[in-house]
Amino acid sequence: TGVATMKFKSPPVNSLSLEFLTEFSISLEKLENNRACRGVIITSAVPKIFSAGLDIMEMCGKSTEHYMEFWRAVQEMWLRLYGSNMVTVAAVNGSSPAGGCLVALSCDYRIMAESPKFSIGLNEAQLGIVAPFWFKDTFVNVVGHRTAERSLQLGSLYPAPEAHKLGLVDELVPEEKLMEKAAAVMAQWLALPDHARQLTKTMMRKAVLDRLVAHREEDIKNFSSFISKESIQKSLRMYMEMLKKRKS
Amino acid sequence: TGVATMKFKSPPVNSLSLEFLTEFSISLEKLENNRACRGVIITSAVPKIFSAGLDIMEMCGKSTEHYMEFWRAVQEMWLRLYGSNMVTVAAVNGSSPAGGCLVALSCDYRIMAESPKFSIGLNEAQLGIVAPFWFKDTFVNVVGHRTAERSLQLGSLYPAPEAHKLGLVDELVPEEKLMEKAAAVMAQWLALPDHARQLTKTMMRKAVLDRLVAHREEDIKNFSSFISKESIQKSLRMYMEMLKKRKS
Amino acid sequence: TGVATMKFKSPPVNSLSLEFLTEFSISLEKLENNRACRGVIITSAVPKIFSAGLDIMEMCGKSTEHYMEFWRAVQEMWLRLYGSNMVTVAAVNGSSPAGGCLVALSCDYRIMAESPKFSIGLNEAQLGIVAPFWFKDTFVNVVGHRTAERSLQLGSLYPAPEAHKLGLVDELVPEEKLMEKAAAVMAQWLALPDHARQLTKTMMRKAVLDRLVAHREEDIKNFSSFISKESIQKSLRMYMEMLKKRKS
Repeated sequence: TGVATMKFKSPPVNSLSLEFLTEFSISLEKLENNRACRGVIITSAVPKIFSAGLDIMEMCGKSTEHYMEFWRAVQEMWLRLYGSNMVTVAAVNGSSPAGGCLVALSCDYRIMAESPKFSIGLNEAQLGIVAPFWFKDTFVNVVGHRTAERSLQLGSLYPAPEAHKLGLVDELVPEEKLMEKAAAVMAQWLALPDHARQLTKTMMRKAVLDRLVAHREEDIKNFSSFISKESIQKSLRMYMEMLKKRKS
Repeated sequence: TGVATMKFKSPPVNSLSLEFLTEFSISLEKLENNRACRGVIITSAVPKIFSAGLDIMEMCGKSTEHYMEFWRAVQEMWLRLYGSNMVTVAAVNGSSPAGGCLVALSCDYRIMAESPKFSIGLNEAQLGIVAPFWFKDTFVNVVGHRTAERSLQLGSLYPAPEAHKLGLVDELVPEEKLMEKAAAVMAQWLALPDHARQLTKTMMRKAVLDRLVAHREEDIKNFSSFISKESIQKSLRMYMEMLKKRKS
Repeated sequence: TGVATMKFKSPPVNSLSLEFLTEFSISLEKLENNRACRGVIITSAVPKIFSAGLDIMEMCGKSTEHYMEFWRAVQEMWLRLYGSNMVTVAAVNGSSPAGGCLVALSCDYRIMAESPKFSIGLNEAQLGIVAPFWFKDTFVNVVGHRTAERSLQLGSLYPAPEAHKLGLVDELVPEEKLMEKAAAVMAQWLALPDHARQLTKTMMRKAVLDRLVAHREEDIKNFSSFISKESIQKSLRMYMEMLKKRKS
């Protein structure tokens, strides 16, 4: 059918570690280069979570070199996904904070399981860190400037029904219908001639993609020096403690 | 009253042929230069159709020179209409795909007959062609980035009620009330001092107008080389065959 | 609690005179430099009016030098408020046209008394004048391009319920609950780490702030030469006459 399905399977919460991101980018590149593949549905094989976002372990107590390598891998994944020539559909079958939300925002279409127990959003500010400009640009392109400004400052996580009202996701369906719906949406998008659709997609996304490409090294340096700050390291450690306590 | 009404009357579907576009631009220029004219209502004299958009006959099996001349005429019409100092109200009394939708989007206000049988949208992708960047810019200025991105990739045509929900048209009225409503809206806009209104309009639209002016020749070349491709010519011929079959 | 409250108290209508603007800017600067202060709630001590906007007396029958000094003070206020590191909440407890609306739009969050008797909007066009580009940029960032284009050309003033529907204000509450609600919203915003929130706010607003900074002197000259025109002076005098008649 020309449609691939990628299932995130890195328990417990599909954190976007360096290894995960590298594999994700390689998989995307392979599909991109496979002429038989015209679309990809991205979903999770882990119950209740789509992806918990960037792996905090990669940002805590590591070397500057590590932070730089990690950040380059985050950029690489986004450049490939947001700029993909394939039709990309996110089947968000669980919560999807921060980097997990970015993955969904970078697709062409977002369908989410309708349960209000699942939430989605760019909540970086709650961890004391700042979503980089290209997370922000991607977000603004989906929900507009005002919703982005407010949500990013508050680090808002929205339950699925609210996310839908804001346009952060395009459609809600009962969880058991999610993959069926994703396939139907994919078929609708693939009914269009690839070439015209791809040129149109590029026209819509090029400005934002080019902006990161033009400032990529600078963005890596910014991230690594920001994350190396003792105050930020402390915030992240506190956040991890809190997560641990919540679990137990 | 200072208000002109332009009625498209080029049966069967008000296609925007080279001749039609040239006449349209000349009419706009005359009204623009007529100090007594402060506003123009644009509507159709052909039942059920506002305008079917760019005339495919002008894009099929013609010379490069013809494509270039045709495209310059499309640009000219848009530059005059989107940049008009007059108040421009579209009374959309029928379907309005592609270039027909662009005409409506370029006005200050869009009123549409409420029938769900009439649809509107930039459906170029369905024909295997791509709406140029200034169609896209005009669309984004009306419906925002996300709706534009999705609609342009899918080549969506929206029935009037859906178009209204997305903000693609400002207001729906029963067809028989359309001209009455257009006159009332025009009166409301003309109640404002011309000078302040015109400066404000220019402030809102200048960036997008300037972008085409700066890339006009490049855009003409892009169009003519894109449309000359055998694959595109084939797509257009197939689309025309389909239209013919649908009719008979 | 780290939260200041500023109450506009310049009867009868809290016009933004040169003196008022200068005091407002100084107060903002003091709070900004006070490390103990993390947020400010802006409201009015005058019943039924938040602020009537720029003081027309400052724009009528004065010298070019005066217009320039006045306009610089308007810019200064906006640069401080829109670019504030503090959390800024507007508790709009009355009508808020033109410059009054700008003050509200420049805050992080807008709560308005729900009465339809109170209206808000950038109605400059109704006075025959034009909102400058940075009023427009601020407005577009809140309500999007289309609503801004239409509202600025018509000089629309929206009753509170309509303003809420358009996103011009974030929330409506009964007037007697306004300050309580503002305090609750402030607490929610202050729950976030200041540093991350401030960097995020800067990321969202910098482009628009920088644009005025880059064109500040030009903007002052434009204003003073525009407002000095006899036709504009006449419009303003007529508007003032109308206001006087309405009162008596």
